[in-house]
Amino acid sequence: MTLNNTAYADLMAFQRETEALAQVAGRLGWDQETQMPRGAAEQRSEEMSALEGVLHARRTDPRIADWLEAADATDEVASANLRHIRRSFDRQAKVPATLAQDLARVTSRAQGIWAEARAQDDVQAFLPMLTEVIRLRREEAACLAQGGDLYDALIDDYEPGATVAGLAAMFDAMRPRLVALRSAVLGASHQPPKLTGHFGQDAQLRMARDLATAFGYDWSRGRLDLAVHPFSSGSGDDARITTRVVESDPFNCFYSTIHEVGHACYELGIDPDYRLTPLGQGVSMGVHESQSRIYENQLGRSRAFTGWMLGQMQDRFDAFGITDADAFYGAVNRVQPGFIRTEADEVQYNLHVMLRFDLERALIRGDLLPADLEAAWNDRFKADFGVAVDRPSHGMLQDVHWSCGLFGYFPTYTLGNVYAGCLNLAMRAAVPDLDDHLARGDATPATDWLRENLQRHGGLYEPREVVARACGFEPDEGPLLDYLEAKFAEIYRL
Amino acid sequence: MTLNNTAYADLMAFQRETEALAQVAGRLGWDQETQMPRGAAEQRSEEMSALEGVLHARRTDPRIADWLEAADATDEVASANLRHIRRSFDRQAKVPATLAQDLARVTSRAQGIWAEARAQDDVQAFLPMLTEVIRLRREEAACLAQGGDLYDALIDDYEPGATVAGLAAMFDAMRPRLVALRSAVLGASHQPPKLTGHFGQDAQLRMARDLATAFGYDWSRGRLDLAVHPFSSGSGDDARITTRVVESDPFNCFYSTIHEVGHACYELGIDPDYRLTPLGQGVSMGVHESQSRIYENQLGRSRAFTGWMLGQMQDRFDAFGITDADAFYGAVNRVQPGFIRTEADEVQYNLHVMLRFDLERALIRGDLLPADLEAAWNDRFKADFGVAVDRPSHGMLQDVHWSCGLFGYFPTYTLGNVYAGCLNLAMRAAVPDLDDHLARGDATPATDWLRENLQRHGGLYEPREVVARACGFEPDEGPLLDYLEAKFAEIYRL
Repeated sequence: MTLNNTAYADLMAFQRETEALAQVAGRLGWDQETQMPRGAAEQRSEEMSALEGVLHARRTDPRIADWLEAADATDEVASANLRHIRRSFDRQAKVPATLAQDLARVTSRAQGIWAEARAQDDVQAFLPMLTEVIRLRREEAACLAQGGDLYDALIDDYEPGATVAGLAAMFDAMRPRLVALRSAVLGASHQPPKLTGHFGQDAQLRMARDLATAFGYDWSRGRLDLAVHPFSSGSGDDARITTRVVESDPFNCFYSTIHEVGHACYELGIDPDYRLTPLGQGVSMGVHESQSRIYENQLGRSRAFTGWMLGQMQDRFDAFGITDADAFYGAVNRVQPGFIRTEADEVQYNLHVMLRFDLERALIRGDLLPADLEAAWNDRFKADFGVAVDRPSHGMLQDVHWSCGLFGYFPTYTLGNVYAGCLNLAMRAAVPDLDDHLARGDATPATDWLRENLQRHGGLYEPREVVARACGFEPDEGPLLDYLEAKFAEIYRL
Repeated sequence: MTLNNTAYADLMAFQRETEALAQVAGRLGWDQETQMPRGAAEQRSEEMSALEGVLHARRTDPRIADWLEAADATDEVASANLRHIRRSFDRQAKVPATLAQDLARVTSRAQGIWAEARAQDDVQAFLPMLTEVIRLRREEAACLAQGGDLYDALIDDYEPGATVAGLAAMFDAMRPRLVALRSAVLGASHQPPKLTGHFGQDAQLRMARDLATAFGYDWSRGRLDLAVHPFSSGSGDDARITTRVVESDPFNCFYSTIHEVGHACYELGIDPDYRLTPLGQGVSMGVHESQSRIYENQLGRSRAFTGWMLGQMQDRFDAFGITDADAFYGAVNRVQPGFIRTEADEVQYNLHVMLRFDLERALIRGDLLPADLEAAWNDRFKADFGVAVDRPSHGMLQDVHWSCGLFGYFPTYTLGNVYAGCLNLAMRAAVPDLDDHLARGDATPATDWLRENLQRHGGLYEPREVVARACGFEPDEGPLLDYLEAKFAEIYRL
């Protein structure tokens, strides 16, 4: 072994422990949202802060610079590992440890306060924490941007290679076609029916488990729990999902579950050789969302799969006003005015994201003060959706993200949709009988194709590159918009 | 502020983060036993090992020696903090980091393998891991003992100040009176009845929750889950308990729950000023067990409390063959041959501990090989209890402790019983109307007295000292044996 290979081996051994500790932090976050007693919140924020301090110290350990200097990349995997470690080291080294710990402590506390404020519809109760989170994230962005755009610096955390300019161009290209489609759909004379009835929590959770199984979720390496805001958590052999239940609207639970199954299958599908290395997790939030969204929409909301779901629901629930597969497919994909992003139909979803993209960019750049956010949100929502927000939990308090400090994250949802549109095009060509399987409640051929062509690579390639490799073409918003226009023209008989 | 006070403040700030990280490790352990998907076991052992490495590095950080040298104890609290930190530093510094990490990794893996082996009654499946755990603990003991007795060195981890010699003398004093009492009880013409019937899991768990509430368990800072081997976990504002359910024997669940509530109430009762400091947790395992055992036995198995429990069970379960309070009190306290320590009656419990004390001492000293343990266990059990062990899960595989590497822990159970006997004597004198409360299902006056006189002190005093202060006399085995003889003479009409 050469000296240089020793440096690489030492670096990777050190990195492996850091990755393991990062998994611990993820597990603590999962516990906080699903298991932790409420009275433990203050103490937990100190635990998270201490662990964040350890992680920051490791990620900025000066030996990393020496190892990076000395290490040789002898193959593609080593080269990718070094690229990830270098990027993380360069970023982390710019942020003082005290700031990183402050952020961990404050965002840990802010999540509980947000959840309470949302339950009480009380913006004022959340505003001081939100202000503090934004202050700290702006401070962090200033460290990272070094004179550049603050929001660009934050996006890079979630989507390496993406920029405000590129995302804004994507949104600009999408908006007119989406607005036109929504207008046609809402004005159509044919309107799909709405589900009615009551759907008990236990039966919903049982069906949610069966839906996860239908997509090939590996229960020996995961689990399903309830949470206020559904999320997935963990990598390697421990990728857990959460969901929520609204007893009048089972689709909320079912499609949240399928969405999170997409995230978790991505993590569980990564080459086991990459476990606890920088390649051992989804490469970016955009690519992650491409998996959750293709599971949820292009697969879960397909005519074939909803046909199977209808039978399942008829077996499990009292009559719910729909018995016909065509009507059920319409009900699943019904476009209607609504306040909540996570419940939005495929046509309007990206319009919700655009609202957040513009507002959080203004918050981070300092053009919008937190105290003015509620009014700005409500004005913008009225302008974009034609409806007045009736309460904060339907407006600026609806999402957990800002309480966690996740500014720059929202645009990756739309990027994920765009990637999902491209992947769906390629997957349908490669697996021509996919609908036959979906119609029998078996989505595993899709998981198999996605695992083989994208998921297994983990962090080996750059985000856009791994999508392009899987698709065989450079991704853009075209396939998603084509898919949406065709799908909704059929459903709404346009 | 003087220079010396700066050293103390710096040390305590550093220690606070270490304590927070130790809480994280506890939370991971809880997750592993209650929530973790089975397939995550390997990865989890790496996570635990990485965290253990961090903790070991912090606990042996050379700055601690400097701070200890420079720090002044200006009051009783500071003096106790420094005593704990110095003891931990001296111990940890003797153990190489690689050994500490090996132990964390191996014991994390061993617990899963033990659980599987126990379920399959397969000693061979556990033996390689057990051998490895013992090898590592002996190696650790050798580092700690520095020429002294290996087992003494391990006891000190759980019960500072206790020694093999002292414990052996205690056991020697207890054995004849316990054996005589058992013999009288088993030969008595009056024998209490046995519970019959089926007790559904959900109803048992609901009653377990109500029992925890009866003792004043603070649900806002804890929770109850199922686990293979009941345990409590966590300090400060997050002290969780677990239980198990056997549908033919509800006392298993109920008294496991009350036992763990005793542990958790101790943690939750500590002065909040001590949170995340060395004083912020139970001072020793023996004192911890005194709390769990006094809740379980002197309170939970008292005539007064079982009178209330009978009514509760009649309201919740189908007929179970007993309707009379006196008979129910007898059934709860029934002495009968049995294999399982955690299910043992108060008369025989300490005999189970003596068996383990002798065997594990031999294992650690190298006088007994792991491969010979099963035969040694079974021989000794036959000699002590007059019954042949019928399967390993009733024998050497019944307890989780050895898979966790907890050698030296078992004697603290009997020490806890002895302390509980003393505390009960003092508490009954101080709270003369306690039985009136217990008879109404309210054990909170006991929790109040124990919190005020013992629990709140956390690690402020040495183990024996805190018990002596609460009792007003030096603890020994006399009060426990007197209590047992009086109680069982009455129940068995001796």
